[in-house]
Amino acid sequence: MEPAVLKQLRFSTMGERLTDPAIVHLMANALSNPEILSLAAGFTDNTALPLDLVKEVVTELAQRPDGSEILQYGMNSGRPGLRRAVAGLLKGYSGEESIGIDENQVLISNGSQQALYIATQVLCDPGDIVLVEKPSYFVYFEVLKGLGVEPLSLPSLPNGRIDFDGLNTLIDRLCRSGDINRLKALYLVTYHANPSARCMPEEDKRTLGKVLQSLDIALPVIEDAAYRDLYFVDPYPAQSTLSLPEYAGLPILYAGTFTKPFATGMKVGYTCCTDQQLLGKMLNVKGQQDFGTANFTQAVIETVMHDGRYQEYLSKIRPHYGRKMKILHNALEEEGLRELGWSWDEPTGGILLWAGAPEGFDTRFGSTFYNSCLSEGVLYVPGDLCFAEGSPTNFVRLSAGVLSEDRLREAARKFVRSAKSTGQGA
Amino acid sequence: MEPAVLKQLRFSTMGERLTDPAIVHLMANALSNPEILSLAAGFTDNTALPLDLVKEVVTELAQRPDGSEILQYGMNSGRPGLRRAVAGLLKGYSGEESIGIDENQVLISNGSQQALYIATQVLCDPGDIVLVEKPSYFVYFEVLKGLGVEPLSLPSLPNGRIDFDGLNTLIDRLCRSGDINRLKALYLVTYHANPSARCMPEEDKRTLGKVLQSLDIALPVIEDAAYRDLYFVDPYPAQSTLSLPEYAGLPILYAGTFTKPFATGMKVGYTCCTDQQLLGKMLNVKGQQDFGTANFTQAVIETVMHDGRYQEYLSKIRPHYGRKMKILHNALEEEGLRELGWSWDEPTGGILLWAGAPEGFDTRFGSTFYNSCLSEGVLYVPGDLCFAEGSPTNFVRLSAGVLSEDRLREAARKFVRSAKSTGQGA
Repeated sequence: MEPAVLKQLRFSTMGERLTDPAIVHLMANALSNPEILSLAAGFTDNTALPLDLVKEVVTELAQRPDGSEILQYGMNSGRPGLRRAVAGLLKGYSGEESIGIDENQVLISNGSQQALYIATQVLCDPGDIVLVEKPSYFVYFEVLKGLGVEPLSLPSLPNGRIDFDGLNTLIDRLCRSGDINRLKALYLVTYHANPSARCMPEEDKRTLGKVLQSLDIALPVIEDAAYRDLYFVDPYPAQSTLSLPEYAGLPILYAGTFTKPFATGMKVGYTCCTDQQLLGKMLNVKGQQDFGTANFTQAVIETVMHDGRYQEYLSKIRPHYGRKMKILHNALEEEGLRELGWSWDEPTGGILLWAGAPEGFDTRFGSTFYNSCLSEGVLYVPGDLCFAEGSPTNFVRLSAGVLSEDRLREAARKFVRSAKSTGQGA
Repeated sequence: MEPAVLKQLRFSTMGERLTDPAIVHLMANALSNPEILSLAAGFTDNTALPLDLVKEVVTELAQRPDGSEILQYGMNSGRPGLRRAVAGLLKGYSGEESIGIDENQVLISNGSQQALYIATQVLCDPGDIVLVEKPSYFVYFEVLKGLGVEPLSLPSLPNGRIDFDGLNTLIDRLCRSGDINRLKALYLVTYHANPSARCMPEEDKRTLGKVLQSLDIALPVIEDAAYRDLYFVDPYPAQSTLSLPEYAGLPILYAGTFTKPFATGMKVGYTCCTDQQLLGKMLNVKGQQDFGTANFTQAVIETVMHDGRYQEYLSKIRPHYGRKMKILHNALEEEGLRELGWSWDEPTGGILLWAGAPEGFDTRFGSTFYNSCLSEGVLYVPGDLCFAEGSPTNFVRLSAGVLSEDRLREAARKFVRSAKSTGQGA
């Protein structure tokens, strides 16, 4: 009998393409080394998680006469009551009362991540192109890489806003080369974005909608609004692509989640889709992948969505995250990071702070600065991971989510100490 | 402004391939008649679900000092404690004490379904072939269809066992035509299978292993053991491909789940993989799809796995499902289905009963018999859905999982009445 171990295992084209992503190493580090101060992990704050609330809700659900249905299979698209609550949430945002979404246009997924993955599967072949922002969510780049799809950056101005002259030039170029036929979606992170912490101004959204309407193709817009509900003081006032008239008739996928604002460990996200054919195909793939997100976790969130305890919880954690961000921001300033030539905008929501070092300063994995931070005992996400192409190498993504207030100050101190010791242009 | 709604939305090759699965048809029939008695749905029994136990565990977890970690992100591969428990479960089966699996070879997924999907993604390109049994799990056929992969049946004998002469002939044919290069996996459902309710005899497994070792390619084996723990009286004694020496050195993916035996609504499954490269690629895709199954549901199951309450619960539901199956089996006999020429083996585990009508009898969607059952108010899964090719049209899959004992008897009565009224060869 010939030992099979010597025969080579054959993978699919996709299987051959796969390589380990950066996030796996970062997450493993954060989980396995409790001594390191992680400004890298996009985790929420353990002390703010709604553990008592969840226990309370599970106890209530268990007392219902038909309670055990929450441990049974549910619908592939998600619980009707939760999908109705999502439609209600969307119409509840200021200025969006007119959104014509109902529960049949909502898909519940394993975090919004799974919906991004499935949308990309049904829209894009290997070699196709998705337009993204500069910077954009680096885990979505992993999705694209896995599926063999190329991210292409929307041109941007020095202030981070979209460069519409540049965009028109880019579109002309794509049309002339025929590459416009490979362009299959536009991916936007519009509220307290990962990683930039920026919100997209409504004016830019409107202008972008007009550009899309002028194309000869129907370009689907994937609007990722994961952090929309995690503002610190006031909601960001821009309407979503679901309600802006400039997007009327375009296929819109609006992706949100209950992971970040409620419980990351429950992995419940949602997508609203204005195109029934697109949604139908996504539901087919969802049925193939797992035929429905866990009914149990959905039932917990449905309950708190319907009786107001979700909004009540949110109103408590918003100032909590606002305070933590303030501490990180202040500590970086007080330790003298601006004096070293670094710059950043103070975030108004989310858990991330995006900072730029002077040109020439290298923040990448393996750089002097990265290694210095590691030996100080502090972790961050190198900003170059967040760009589709021509990545600047002088940005960092810092998270205020995980660490306690004291440890945030300590992490900022170590981070700035590393920046000082590394020096300009390192 | 040209209305974008007139522009055609472009899907990927995969997106274009997708069509609504058969189960949509069944669900539509079920929804249009809420009174219908479903022998079709593969649901477990609401009255047997561990609702009080889950409430109890959540309450306990909420009292732990570090309790809130269960609402936080976990590792992409799953909770280490749950993965250790899975390794322990596998080594705990009689005859499998020698299995060399540890927690680093275990992946936790959203039911075993997601692991089947991801394994197929990393192994198979569109146009590739997966060997399956006759019959096989029809939801896996949907996975294959979605990914553009062709199922090909293992030749079988009239008693349902593998026809090894036929298999050798098939392999010769694949080698001569070069199609062996497209053959990428073997998918087996080995314990109280969906849909056949059969267990694969250890002798057949061993012979099959020898055939696989004789191939020039390293053919991965996906062993789906979803119902292994749901035996009625005694565990089926066959060892798994993880421990049989005939499979040594072959890439084995052993997929199990806590959905069927514990709670379908929690969607927690697991896969053990003997090939680190294959597992690594699957983990990459898992990271892209959702970076880890919900930590919360995993924590509940981890707890009952470690303290014995899982096995205690199983020991209570085994006789429950055994009794329900006995009722279905007896009712079909007492109503006279065998006298009509139908045949089936009484299942020894699981929730499914697989019955064959006489040759020429048509059980498909839209057949006289199917429609007669619909008007009687009883639903079943037509057996032709469960074959890769050359589907016989005279089989049915009946589930004893959902209905109460009284309603099971009533459903069997209606089913047999339809069979009588439809008559031979209809």
